[in-house]
Amino acid sequence: MVDEIRVKKDDLAAFCVAAFEKLGVPRRDAEVATEVLIVADLRDKGSHGVARLARYVEGIQAGLMLPTDRSTVVQESDTTALIDGGKSLGQVVGVKGMDLAIRKAKARGTGFVTARNSNHYGIAGYYALRAVEHGCVGISMTNAAPLVVPTFGRDAILGTNPIAIAIPCEGDPFLFDAATSVVPRGKLEVYDRLGKPMPLGWAVDARGKGTANAKEVLDNLIHRQGGGILPLGGEGEEFSGHKGYGLALAVELLCAALSASAFGGKTYVDEHSANVGHFFGAIDVTAFRPLDDLKAEVREYLDSLKGGPKAEGHDRIYTHGEKGFAFESDCLRRGIPLGPKVVDSLKKIGGQLGVPWPG
Amino acid sequence: MVDEIRVKKDDLAAFCVAAFEKLGVPRRDAEVATEVLIVADLRDKGSHGVARLARYVEGIQAGLMLPTDRSTVVQESDTTALIDGGKSLGQVVGVKGMDLAIRKAKARGTGFVTARNSNHYGIAGYYALRAVEHGCVGISMTNAAPLVVPTFGRDAILGTNPIAIAIPCEGDPFLFDAATSVVPRGKLEVYDRLGKPMPLGWAVDARGKGTANAKEVLDNLIHRQGGGILPLGGEGEEFSGHKGYGLALAVELLCAALSASAFGGKTYVDEHSANVGHFFGAIDVTAFRPLDDLKAEVREYLDSLKGGPKAEGHDRIYTHGEKGFAFESDCLRRGIPLGPKVVDSLKKIGGQLGVPWPG
Repeated sequence: MVDEIRVKKDDLAAFCVAAFEKLGVPRRDAEVATEVLIVADLRDKGSHGVARLARYVEGIQAGLMLPTDRSTVVQESDTTALIDGGKSLGQVVGVKGMDLAIRKAKARGTGFVTARNSNHYGIAGYYALRAVEHGCVGISMTNAAPLVVPTFGRDAILGTNPIAIAIPCEGDPFLFDAATSVVPRGKLEVYDRLGKPMPLGWAVDARGKGTANAKEVLDNLIHRQGGGILPLGGEGEEFSGHKGYGLALAVELLCAALSASAFGGKTYVDEHSANVGHFFGAIDVTAFRPLDDLKAEVREYLDSLKGGPKAEGHDRIYTHGEKGFAFESDCLRRGIPLGPKVVDSLKKIGGQLGVPWPG
Repeated sequence: MVDEIRVKKDDLAAFCVAAFEKLGVPRRDAEVATEVLIVADLRDKGSHGVARLARYVEGIQAGLMLPTDRSTVVQESDTTALIDGGKSLGQVVGVKGMDLAIRKAKARGTGFVTARNSNHYGIAGYYALRAVEHGCVGISMTNAAPLVVPTFGRDAILGTNPIAIAIPCEGDPFLFDAATSVVPRGKLEVYDRLGKPMPLGWAVDARGKGTANAKEVLDNLIHRQGGGILPLGGEGEEFSGHKGYGLALAVELLCAALSASAFGGKTYVDEHSANVGHFFGAIDVTAFRPLDDLKAEVREYLDSLKGGPKAEGHDRIYTHGEKGFAFESDCLRRGIPLGPKVVDSLKKIGGQLGVPWPG
């Protein structure tokens, strides 16, 4: 990107923390929300990074999200908990939920926590990785605003409903963190900006038929006129779109039904009211075997997999999380790359809230 | 199918139980192994049904699987257990593992059990559904013999590594049960028999490039000459094949690393020695909310989803498990449909073991 600007991680974090504080978010929670955003940028998931700060600012200003933590544990056992997020920031609810799951796992072997009445919590993988820091397998899922059309359907009624699974490993951990849709909305936006036809198999039009017209799909989604993004596996059943649809539905049920949050399509009733559901799990590795043994074996297996023969025209097999961690190392050296639109939106927030932009 | 033969469920079950008993499997375990096979046939997953009886017979005769249950719990906590399968029948190990997870979940909220040194355990969904009978969310995964090629790779080193998630619901439960590959091997076999080119995006040849030649892929898999089936999402990253690959890898790690079983590619070291790993989870719904509330809400949501507008050319949206349960009802009325090849193989087993075929 020609106009890309690199901002030091600490400077960007200080800016976001200050912005949250100006909105009435206590410092500790402002740091939590900021960290989840910044980690997304560091791991090359910029669509979930500081580019979204405006949404949080607007969310707090509109009363969709409350600046102070109103979340409470409404039901609890040695291994489980249900949190009512009380419309607090999704990241604050998320960290509380995951850390509770981890504490239970360390004490009892496993911990599973769901949350309702929450908001957008950022990247699912952030929470799963917290568990790895404690020698646990980490699982994190959330439902989300509807963008995805079920197999043979015509309306977007499922969120992109991500699944994150993190597993300890020597060196960087294994981190699967992916939406259950075939592509994120951001990919359609790229094709829209370029005015290029997108691949067939990513989205359907208002009749529920495959389309290459990204602009039309995005417009239809905004105005809820039918159509939307396809689940992983694409249109119909030929490439098993019903499997991606099933994964999205499983995430929806685990997040919403186990927490009594709203289901897809009703997670954001209107612009002043959200009721997102999350699901967090932690499983202590030492309940099964010594942590170092597992970490060494996972590293050995992933390395052997990466060392396998490559497809013609390719010289590298990746394992999950690897690209993100490499991007992070680069960002820590050279700063976090931000596009000009993102910088403009941050400067505007800074101007409005009286927080100087570090650039 | 023209030559399809319908056999009554009870007759087919009695035949399989008798065959297992002739091989030295105690009656109770013979019934367990039979039930898992028959349920696959009842749910329209015939590739994992009695068509596989020959493999179990051969497996026991070759010493790959032991007829008596040698499985032991080698590590255990209130919420977790690790089972060494001792080369016993995968279904016997699987039921023991899942039932242990369920007992722990009913006592403590959650239960997670892994198993190593096991064998092919049949359909993943069978075990997940056992948890639903006890008001739990059920999770079941297994690794398997290598058939799937990682993104940008050229060799099949991952199993079709299925994920099953079952969730209680009024009426039939929600049951997601799917391989993490784009299609099962059986689909390639269908195209091979018909001599038709298969869709591009299902498999790669020995160079790791997409191919429509099912026969070539199947031959290459048998002789381990490179190539194989693609993960869900297909070739490369355009349709997010890396997500299906990541799911397969997550299943591999949860099943193998948490149990210290063999990893994909080494699950079957040779024809006399298997070391398959399984992962079972149960989460008690009542740890989060009243079971009836959840069941009613899941039903309401699934019905609303099914009632949504359909894609042009389609008149029905399915939810997961639905087709299988409908197939089961039909089988219970009319008998289980078996192809002539399957019937021949069963008759041959019956002849060899001295068990009369019920037809």
